[in-house]
Order: sequence, then C-alpha cells, then structure tokens
Amino acid sequence: MSQRSRRQPNMNLGKGNMAAPSSQSCTALERSIRERVPTLLTDLYQFTMAYAYWRSGRHNEPAVFELFFRDNPFGGSFSLFSGMHDCLLFLRSFRFTDEDVEYLRSVLPPATDPAFFLFLRELDCSGVTLHSVPEGMVVFARVPLMEVSGPLAVVQLLETSLLCLVNYASLVCSNAARFRLAAGSRRKLLEMGLRRAQGPDGGLTASRYTYVGGFDMTSNVQAGFLFGIPVAGTMAHSYVTSFSSLEEVWPQTLVAANGDHDNIDLISLTKGWLGRVCELLGVESGKIHEGELAAFLSYAIAYPHNFLPVIDSYSVTYSGLLNFCAVALSLFELDYSPLGVRLDSGDLCRQSVEVRHVFRLCSEQFSIPAFQSLLIVGTNNISEYSMAELNKKENEIDVVGVGTHLVTCTRQPSLGCVYKLVEVRGSPRMKFSEDPEKSTVPGRKAVYRMLDTEGHPFLDLLCLCEEPAPKACVAVRCHPVVGNKTCQSITPSQVSCLRLEVYTKGQITHPLCSTAETREKVQSSIQTLHPRHKRLQEPDSYIVAVSEKLHNLIAEIRNGSSNNSNFLLAN
Amino acid sequence: MSQRSRRQPNMNLGKGNMAAPSSQSCTALERSIRERVPTLLTDLYQFTMAYAYWRSGRHNEPAVFELFFRDNPFGGSFSLFSGMHDCLLFLRSFRFTDEDVEYLRSVLPPATDPAFFLFLRELDCSGVTLHSVPEGMVVFARVPLMEVSGPLAVVQLLETSLLCLVNYASLVCSNAARFRLAAGSRRKLLEMGLRRAQGPDGGLTASRYTYVGGFDMTSNVQAGFLFGIPVAGTMAHSYVTSFSSLEEVWPQTLVAANGDHDNIDLISLTKGWLGRVCELLGVESGKIHEGELAAFLSYAIAYPHNFLPVIDSYSVTYSGLLNFCAVALSLFELDYSPLGVRLDSGDLCRQSVEVRHVFRLCSEQFSIPAFQSLLIVGTNNISEYSMAELNKKENEIDVVGVGTHLVTCTRQPSLGCVYKLVEVRGSPRMKFSEDPEKSTVPGRKAVYRMLDTEGHPFLDLLCLCEEPAPKACVAVRCHPVVGNKTCQSITPSQVSCLRLEVYTKGQITHPLCSTAETREKVQSSIQTLHPRHKRLQEPDSYIVAVSEKLHNLIAEIRNGSSNNSNFLLAN
Repeated sequence: MSQRSRRQPNMNLGKGNMAAPSSQSCTALERSIRERVPTLLTDLYQFTMAYAYWRSGRHNEPAVFELFFRDNPFGGSFSLFSGMHDCLLFLRSFRFTDEDVEYLRSVLPPATDPAFFLFLRELDCSGVTLHSVPEGMVVFARVPLMEVSGPLAVVQLLETSLLCLVNYASLVCSNAARFRLAAGSRRKLLEMGLRRAQGPDGGLTASRYTYVGGFDMTSNVQAGFLFGIPVAGTMAHSYVTSFSSLEEVWPQTLVAANGDHDNIDLISLTKGWLGRVCELLGVESGKIHEGELAAFLSYAIAYPHNFLPVIDSYSVTYSGLLNFCAVALSLFELDYSPLGVRLDSGDLCRQSVEVRHVFRLCSEQFSIPAFQSLLIVGTNNISEYSMAELNKKENEIDVVGVGTHLVTCTRQPSLGCVYKLVEVRGSPRMKFSEDPEKSTVPGRKAVYRMLDTEGHPFLDLLCLCEEPAPKACVAVRCHPVVGNKTCQSITPSQVSCLRLEVYTKGQITHPLCSTAETREKVQSSIQTLHPRHKRLQEPDSYIVAVSEKLHNLIAEIRNGSSNNSNFLLAN
Repeated sequence: MSQRSRRQPNMNLGKGNMAAPSSQSCTALERSIRERVPTLLTDLYQFTMAYAYWRSGRHNEPAVFELFFRDNPFGGSFSLFSGMHDCLLFLRSFRFTDEDVEYLRSVLPPATDPAFFLFLRELDCSGVTLHSVPEGMVVFARVPLMEVSGPLAVVQLLETSLLCLVNYASLVCSNAARFRLAAGSRRKLLEMGLRRAQGPDGGLTASRYTYVGGFDMTSNVQAGFLFGIPVAGTMAHSYVTSFSSLEEVWPQTLVAANGDHDNIDLISLTKGWLGRVCELLGVESGKIHEGELAAFLSYAIAYPHNFLPVIDSYSVTYSGLLNFCAVALSLFELDYSPLGVRLDSGDLCRQSVEVRHVFRLCSEQFSIPAFQSLLIVGTNNISEYSMAELNKKENEIDVVGVGTHLVTCTRQPSLGCVYKLVEVRGSPRMKFSEDPEKSTVPGRKAVYRMLDTEGHPFLDLLCLCEEPAPKACVAVRCHPVVGNKTCQSITPSQVSCLRLEVYTKGQITHPLCSTAETREKVQSSIQTLHPRHKRLQEPDSYIVAVSEKLHNLIAEIRNGSSNNSNFLLAN
C-alpha cells in the first residue's frame, strides 16, 4: 500500500500534467494570442484619431502613454500585475491584413484619404518601446505600470488591446491571490470556473492567471495544454446518476495492484464491505442507492489509482459516504490507494467533519492507517468570505474547488485600467477633467519602490525621468497623490527601480517566464508586503507619491492653463 | 445645410457600417468559433467520465441532458436566451486533433486503455440532436432551454463548452435588455466596454450580445467586422491633449461643402467665431485651451462631416464647449453639419442641460436651427441605476455610452447555467443533492408557454414528452417548481411549444439568424411580456410549473429511493 501522509493532497491524474508546455504548445500560445486579439479588436476611435494624426502629419511624433489603474481592487491595498507577456506577443504580431484594411475602409468616413489605408497596411510596432513592471509583481493604484512610447498614431492604436489584456488578467490574478491568502498556504486550491466565466477566453484567462495568483491546479484542459498548469478532476453528478443498477458495471473484476493476477469480483467484495461499514456506523442500508454504488465501482475499475467520487448525488450520510467507504475498502484490500471524496452541496464544513469521523472509524476498525487521511474536496459556491470562514469553523476540507466567485470576480468584476497620454515631442501632457480624480499626472517618469529596514515596500515614488534616482538612506521629499497630500520627507533603506525595458525595435528584450515561474514570482512578491498592507479587510493604504519636481510640474501646468488665450490675439 | 431633426442621433461614421457581415466575415465567424472554443477547452472530468463510460461499454447508450439556469439574473423576473448559434457552430466543428489526443494521453491516468484515444480521435457530433429555445427569446429560471440527446459519452463531453457559450451570452444580453428598458426606446445606446471586459473575447461577446439585447452600436471594430454591428466613435482625451498649439493644425484650410472650391482658412474663421461665442455667453476667454482648439480644428479638417469631440479634457464651461461652438459654427458656415459633443466626466445631467442651453443660444443668435439639436453624448461609468435616473432628472443626453457595468455585469457577473442528466436508455434520472434547490427534474420533457387573453405569457409548463400537449382554452393542472408549490389549475388562451429541433445528424436544421434579426426577435419577445414581469425593480415572479404526470414521476423516484437496497441481498 503506498504511503501518503495526511494533508498532502495530490489530485493530479497522470504522468504529464505538471510538465512545462511543449514547444508545440508554445507555438499554440503565440497563435492563440493572434486569434484572441486580432488587430481589429479595438475601438473605432483609435482609427479616426490615427487618421486625424496622419492627416495633420503628426503620426510619427514621439509620444508616451502610461497604463495604470486608479483604485486597488476588492477593497484591498494592492493588486498583482499580469498580462504583460500577452502584450509583448501582441506587439510582436501587430499588423493589419488586407481584409482588415478593407473593412476599415468600409466603416471610416468617406472623406478618409485612401493613402491612409496604405499607411495602415504597412504599420507595425518596430518603432514602439515598452517599459513595464515585471509580470506578477505586487503593484498599487496610480502607479504607471507600463510606459508605451513610439510614433503617436501607433501608440494610440495600441490602447484598447493593451488595456484589455492587462485589465482582466491583473484583476483575476489579484482575486486568486486574495483567495490564497484567505485559504492559507496549507490547503490545495482548484480553479474550476470555465463554465461560469465571461466567455470561453474569459475562462481560459482565468485558469491561467488564477494559477499564477496562487491556485494549485485547474479543471480546464486547454489551460493545461497551453500553459502547463496541472489539471484535475474526476466525476460529475451526471456520471453518478447515469447508473441505475449494478448490472451496468462492466467489467466487474479488478486485478490486485500487488502483482497477483487473479481477477477479483469487485461487486461481491464491495457488497461485503458495505455490510460491514453499515454495521460499524450503525446505519440502515435502506437509502443506499444502487446506481451510485454502480457508478463508484465502475469508476474504480476504470481508474483504480484515481478514485475520488462526488458523494452527494442522493444523500452523503445515507448513501454516498457508505458507498465510497465500501469501494475504498475494496481498493485498499487490493492494494490500491483511493484518493478521497468530493462534497458539492450543503454545509461543507459540517459534512467534512462527519466524513473525516467516518474515515477515522474505518481506519481504526479495519486497520488501514491511510483511510483516515483520504482527501476531502469541497466545492460549493466558495467565495473569498467563505474561504476565510474555513479558517474559523471546524472542518476537514483538504482541497477547495472554486468557480464563479473566483473567475468572474463577483465582488468587483473590472479593474479599470486606463491608458493616458503623458508626453508628446518631449513636452508633458495633462488632462484636467471635470472629476479631479480623473486628472492625469504629466511627463515621462521613472518609478521607484521604497523599502523599509525590514525589506517591506512602504512607498512608490513617481519622478520625472530626468531626475536623479532616489538613494538608499537619503531623505527625499514627496507628495502623496491621494489622501493626505501634504509634502513629507521619507528615508528608504533600499530603493528599487520598478520598471524594465521589455520591448524595443520589434524585439522582446526581457525573457518571458513560464506560467509556473511567474506564479513563484507572485508569491515572493506578496511575501515582501508588510502585514498591514497584505490584510484582506481594512488594510492600511499604501502610499504612492510624486517627487517635488513632478509636483511642481503639475502646479505649473495647472497655472499655465489659466493664462492660455493669448493665441486668440495672434493671426 | 443638411436637415437633421433633433433626437434622431446618428453617430454612424461611414457608408458600410450597417452592412450585414460579408461572406468573408461569415467564414471568419466559423473560424472564430473554432479558435475561441477549441475542443480541449473543457473540464478534465469530462474525459475521465467519458473513459469510464467507454470502459464499461456504456458510451453509446442514448442519454439526454438539459441546460437551464436556476435564478433569473439582476433581481428581475426574466432573462434572454443567447449563445445557441455558437453552440450549433461548435457542434458542427467538434472534433479532436492528433495534438489534442496526445495531450490528453499525457494527462489522463496511465491506466487509460490506449484504444480510448483512438475512440476520441474518431468522435464527432453526428449522433447528437439538439432541441433548443430559439436564440433571443425571453426565458425564465428552471425552464430547460436546451435538450441535448445522443451517445452518453459525447453529450457528456459537450457540457462545459455549451455552458460556457450560453452562460455569458445570455447574461450580457439580458443585462443590455435591462439597460434598454431603463433607457426607454428613444435614447441611442452605445456599447464601449471592450477595454474593461473580462478578456478580449469577453469584450467581443459583450459587443455582440449587448447589440442583440437592444444597444444600437458598439465601439468594437472586430464586432462590426464579424457581426455587422454598427460601429461608432470619434476621439479620446489623448487626442485632445496631444495638441498644444494652433501651429500643429495642418492643413489649416477646408473647402466648403457647397461645391465652392476656395480653400477657407479654418483657424482664422474659428477665432472669429470664438470671440463671438465668448461675447454671446459673457465668458472670459482666459481659460480657453489653445491645444484643445487645435485638436478640434484638426479633427474637423480631417472629418468635417463627423465632428463630435470630447469636450471635458480641461473645462467644459470655460474651454471645451466654447471651442466646440466656434468650430461647429465655422463648419455650419461652410455648409457642413457637425454632429455634437461628448461629455465624459462630472455630472452629465447638469452639464448636458448647460450644453443644450448654449446650443440654443447659438442657434438663435446665429440663426442656425440645426445647432440646437446637435447630439449630446454622455459616457461616465453608467450603470442600470444611473440610466434609469436619466428618466427622472432633467437632462439633454441623446446618446449614452456604457462600458464596465454593461459588459462585466457588475451587479451579477455570472448566470449560473447548469447541464443535468435527465434520462438514460429511456429511463428518467434525478439528482437529489444536499441542497433541495440543487435537485433536478427527471425525464425527457416538452416545454410549453401559456399565454393569457392579451397574449402575455404567464406560465411555462414542463411536461413529459409523451404527454399530449396542453390545449388553448382547456384547463390543465400544474405544480409550480418553486415558491407556492400547491397544485393549481390554469386555462391558457394560447399555448406555444417553446423548443425546436435545431441540430441533428451532423446538420444545423434551423436557419441561423443574423445578429440584427436576432436583435429584432429580442425586442418583440420582450414586448410580449406583461408589465408586471418586465418591471426592473421588484417584478412579479413568473411561474414555471411541472405537469401532474411529471410531478408524480418526481414523487415516485423520491419514494423509490427510500427502498433501494434490495440489491445488497442479491449476489
């Protein structure tokens, strides 16, 4: 009998499911980006603006856009940055086909100069440079995560696609990280939201980035294929209810795992165990479903090493648990190791305690130590809140499967990233807006993260890129961008530059990490956070500030705008 | 000067944007389904179950699954059914490639018989029959919308993909229909949520089904390309802030629309108008942004027929509105018809009233009747609630653009469709579950909609398919499936059968409608609803009931289950 220690759940179902994606699937990944994000998947106004830039000869003016979000999601104080790798693949493949251009010709105003379509046909991102926070890093509201620089018309055209790729990836990754924090590191987490996601690609993106955010496995096979994520799953209720009688079990025999070649009649063996289990538990057998037992037997014969049935199709106490124990005891007798059970309805905590109690009784009564540590998987509309409750209420759940609340981010289904122009031809640009919080921070910037003596980040500082970098152990004056805006002086113990050049001259200049590597980065990035920022409920706000010089630039532009109409006097 | 009457907004930007999708884009549509929903985009347990069916020789047993949702979304009493067309295309293209099968071989347990992979490689949906509610029909919780019948292993394998295609499509279509009901029929609605959607395909699906649900146009170009949806959009703030001086305007001249070939200096002309506008309104010119005026002029020169700038980049009252009026007056003078303005921040209602007031003053002062009826587009985080508020507060908004709340369905981001086994080999199947509301209704059914004397539907009745259909004006006994479950007798004035056969023997057997046709169906389907069911807030519940015979079958299966363990005595 194989030795599996309690609390080391392993729902993996085969040999290859932890493997990195094959070179075939790397090709598939690139193809998938081109298919998922065709170049026309953008807002029409990107083209009308591009035309107006082109018409006035400004399309090649050097421009700089920044991508950021305005509020941390889910009432937390941080987010995780994801989607950058997809942006890189998108930039590399950005091109309009003849078919694209013909369609654009049909929808842009008739006044559009035909030469503009020739211009579009030739466009690519060879003139674009992307500086970005690395994929999987902890980030904060108002910090420019990406800086996209290049020809005005091109960097304008990229807006919607980059936002679309970063927004949901970062949101769902952050959501997963919160579920992981709520669950603690011990419990295994399974993502299983594909069917409830916002469309097929919503499901695929969720599987990918919830793994990055800290989940252990997914039910989504395509996500396993494309991203090398471990996949898991055994059976649904339909499998159980499809059986009605033991006559449907075929073959009815199983050869023991110990090398003995005799065919053992698993039905008779299990009937015997079922009687003993009922006796042990003092339960009447009157409500035991024959079809459920048939389903369990049939599955156990097909996959004797991977027996983990869903046990609530009829009644956990009076049917599912009894049938499971009987089949599991048969498997143990034949030297197989069943995996455990899944609960999918009712009070998961209460039931898991009952199930574990029965497992312990069987373990003692039948002298099978491994029986007490069989897995209990819980899957029933789990939210971040109910996940956190699992740490407060008595329960015996080893693996939690999460769907809807995880993948659709019910608590806040959109992150709200924006993409704002900050510089043209070396001159800073700023939007004021009728809503003060929609104002932008002008100028091309460098972004620094300030760490305290314990290595926890405590402030992100936006400087103009021509400013000297702040230094460790040297005081620097800064102005928080929200909340208490009065100037303060801070002294970091360490300073790190937050963004890297990741794309330039048509080339990706920073190595792409595998999904698994990014997942590790996420966990180590979260670990650097101070507990006051990591707290899921009512965390302290993390301070994002601008340098004295940037602060002055903002004031200058605001004041300049009040004295701006001299042009009316000129001819 | 062209005659456009007030309140007939037309933001369409060209000649071809209302066209049905070309044959090229029909091909693109089919390709898109195969790319968006690869056959591996499903849960692993579909394969482990398929294997266990196959292993026990049950894979070809005739089985019937039903797809339905348990609760109407958004606190309403109805939903719209969408996604069926995509399901049909999916069924038609359902096949595993060698690469798919090789990946499955690597993740399924090593015990899997190699012959199973040959079986998978040969699978298709030629044995599957789909009966479905037509695309775009009003539907209610607990009514089986699709019945999928065919070989057990195949119809099991379809579960996740069908759910994924129907769930979000129906949800976002229903959300759009609610926004449309909240807005009333007069106002034009623009969907613009791509950048905030749950991934690229989430955005594409949203554009498609919000149009179906009652929106008039989308900003999403790919949605226009694939589905023939009218596309709209003019400029973002970045376009405005990219200009800083009138020197950037090039060319600076425009030829009048009346055929006169003289090049008119639009800058001088507009400066003159700007002075007169400031005088008329008694506004100081000190806060007028030169860059904003340059942006407006430049755009107007590029697209003189399509001038609709965003006017809140700096200040609506002191800059944007003044600049707009000046450029618009120049365009009118040259016999062009500007379209209007977009407001994207602040109190949209208040500002729209101010803007309309200024439009009227200009109209009167400068004798341009069309000026008073220029479009006012509002776009600022619109929710269903704020949309409904537009009917209560004074405002002058003609077109509303909606993004985040529409496409991500913030109020309820998942519909929760499920797919349940109801019959195998002609015998009904039922799941009981630990949660009573998760129980299923067994047996193969026919679904009838009962209409009252005014043609409003008032009850959907699920019968066993062998029962005779209920008849108009004949009383029928029925048992509501939720709420008050006591038997009642109802007499419909009309009865309609809700589902059609849409796919069988590998063929789509019901004509696919265009996106625009489905949109019309949605509106006429909603119109049949009684106001008490159509109400957005606290509507009456719509009754879904089972026939006497089906009610008895449920009781029989439940009772049968209490006396089920005789099999333990047999050998």
